[in-house]
Amino acid sequence: MFVAILHGEHAVVHGKVALAVCLNLRTYLRLRATTNGKVCINLPNIDTFLSWDLDEVKQLNPHPCGQSEELNCLDHEIVRRLRDFVGVVDGKLDTGNMAILAFLYIYISLFGSGELPSLTMSVWSELPTGAGLGSSAAYSVCLAAALLCACGAIPVPLKETDHTARWCQEDLELINSWAFKGEMIIHGNPSGVDNAVGTWGGMLRFVVGKIIPLSRVPLLRILLTNTKVPRSTKVLVARVKDKINKFPSIMIPVLDSVDGISCTCEKVLSEMTSEPITGEHYNILEELIDINQHHLNVMGVGHPTLDTLCRVTLTRGLHSKLTGAGGGGCGITLLRPETDSLVVQRTAQDLKDCGFDCWETSIGGPGVQQHSPVSIKQEVLDILNKY
Amino acid sequence: MFVAILHGEHAVVHGKVALAVCLNLRTYLRLRATTNGKVCINLPNIDTFLSWDLDEVKQLNPHPCGQSEELNCLDHEIVRRLRDFVGVVDGKLDTGNMAILAFLYIYISLFGSGELPSLTMSVWSELPTGAGLGSSAAYSVCLAAALLCACGAIPVPLKETDHTARWCQEDLELINSWAFKGEMIIHGNPSGVDNAVGTWGGMLRFVVGKIIPLSRVPLLRILLTNTKVPRSTKVLVARVKDKINKFPSIMIPVLDSVDGISCTCEKVLSEMTSEPITGEHYNILEELIDINQHHLNVMGVGHPTLDTLCRVTLTRGLHSKLTGAGGGGCGITLLRPETDSLVVQRTAQDLKDCGFDCWETSIGGPGVQQHSPVSIKQEVLDILNKY
Repeated sequence: MFVAILHGEHAVVHGKVALAVCLNLRTYLRLRATTNGKVCINLPNIDTFLSWDLDEVKQLNPHPCGQSEELNCLDHEIVRRLRDFVGVVDGKLDTGNMAILAFLYIYISLFGSGELPSLTMSVWSELPTGAGLGSSAAYSVCLAAALLCACGAIPVPLKETDHTARWCQEDLELINSWAFKGEMIIHGNPSGVDNAVGTWGGMLRFVVGKIIPLSRVPLLRILLTNTKVPRSTKVLVARVKDKINKFPSIMIPVLDSVDGISCTCEKVLSEMTSEPITGEHYNILEELIDINQHHLNVMGVGHPTLDTLCRVTLTRGLHSKLTGAGGGGCGITLLRPETDSLVVQRTAQDLKDCGFDCWETSIGGPGVQQHSPVSIKQEVLDILNKY
Repeated sequence: MFVAILHGEHAVVHGKVALAVCLNLRTYLRLRATTNGKVCINLPNIDTFLSWDLDEVKQLNPHPCGQSEELNCLDHEIVRRLRDFVGVVDGKLDTGNMAILAFLYIYISLFGSGELPSLTMSVWSELPTGAGLGSSAAYSVCLAAALLCACGAIPVPLKETDHTARWCQEDLELINSWAFKGEMIIHGNPSGVDNAVGTWGGMLRFVVGKIIPLSRVPLLRILLTNTKVPRSTKVLVARVKDKINKFPSIMIPVLDSVDGISCTCEKVLSEMTSEPITGEHYNILEELIDINQHHLNVMGVGHPTLDTLCRVTLTRGLHSKLTGAGGGGCGITLLRPETDSLVVQRTAQDLKDCGFDCWETSIGGPGVQQHSPVSIKQEVLDILNKY
């Protein structure tokens, strides 16, 4: 349950509506009870394999007699001890250390008032980290769900005959609030959107602090492309702000137009769940993608590789836009239900020939869920079982 | 004095500000008194060479004893007789017939109350007709100025030592009003902008029926490119209107943003005449061009050839946008004062290699003027003298 912005990136910083969607590229977490008196963490995506004696970890808990956690707020004493423990260099943590910090924080917070359990956690992700697609949120949501289950705060939802199962609304809210703590540890000041999408799946509307899951959305086939051009979200957000200050009479209407795109898109997607889906629905979705991509270029967050993505896919009749911060990074290409798999394969090959990574997936899929082993692809099972 | 829209095409149809500029690609008209009792008209650009006996033309005047012309209104009886005379096929006139009709209308209206003079008129234009660059207005303005001079309604401004001379404001207004009649004959329902630009030159701001010549504007070097893709202005205007009706919350802000572009551009150009011109002035002009080109694509009036124009010029660091109706047609590329002529030549060659026509010229030049023969390029003189 990675996250992409369908419409409204950057405009959301300036108070406009954005739509965040769940990508059906998933992060899998396996938690096993062990008897070796150790906590083991295996993150094969980033070559991180660590284990600690339970006694060692126990020392990190400043409240061994238990203390209730405040919602949406970190226990700064635990964070301080953990940062010392994992080893902070120049105030910065690398991806692996961030992931460990988030795990240990939730683990200690949830189990700290009692006995710490001996366990091994393995996580495998279908997407590389750092592509700006909410990989940390996907990880945090999995962590929260697995550890909340393990400590008994939420039930194990999977019945014997199920392939997958989800939690009830109340449990999802608890998962989301702990995932948000993980995000706070990793990001400092997260918007809360990524973990909400990872938890509820589907699509979320967000605008100045309000995050509203949309009740029903259609599943849309997409190609996800990573141009692999590195960029700084902070620099790009500042660039847009500068341009608004430089040309307010030109740029403020562009933000209003993006708001109109998000709202129109939300309306069309809602119609697609309540009436027969027609080609015209897809025509509109494609038009909205094209208009928004132009607006993002106007905001100054385009990139020649993103122009290439749009041009290459358009030669196959497909429409693309950047997703997220822009300036490189990732783009999404809408596929129609009738788009032939040969066309998709050829387009993906064209994009790979440009030096991009490319995945066929869908948006609007489910959020966090528990899987029975038979519902998981063998290659993923193999990796999770290996560690 | 051809005309290009610098910013605001299409948006002007919806009540927004547009900036029209005079292109320094010119139309030359030579009028000679003759003694053969004939009216001769030579339009070598469109292979049109005709002459009539004065007696024949005299019959076309419904008011041989003279009748005052109403301003901004055609004498429909003359128009009716002229249409019969030049031969209307299926209610339509080709370019040559239109040009003849406009000439005869102004000729008869100005001289009709007295003796019709025997004369030969030759017109040569540096740009082909029908490129959507106000070729008919350039022609109408020349016609009006030459015939008003010939009938003594305005003075001959050229002094012996001058190379070129312009008329006073009052005379220009008379020229403009007669040029507008020519445009009414050719176009049916012209906006009046093209003939105003051809008359006053420089740059005009126009918005819902108001046309305001800007007092001082800098001369800007440009490349003018004709993609040679034919298009219908009517169809393109309708397309934009449909898109506004389909997505009002998205498209109305885009029109507002275009309005902001025109006003910002006007402000920058005005600053360029009152303070030292800097690179930053050009940076802003380039940014405005890029933003407007994206907006025109959003309006649905782009074209793959125009994308090519933008891409090809950008590889040389130059910024382009369509001008006029779009959907093919013409584009302009801003050149900086420091842009090396070798870069300009190579860019022009790149564009010609794409199958486009390309001219280096400038915008913001003078409107209608009288030339001494020495101020005219030999090749133009040769053509005008040949006929």
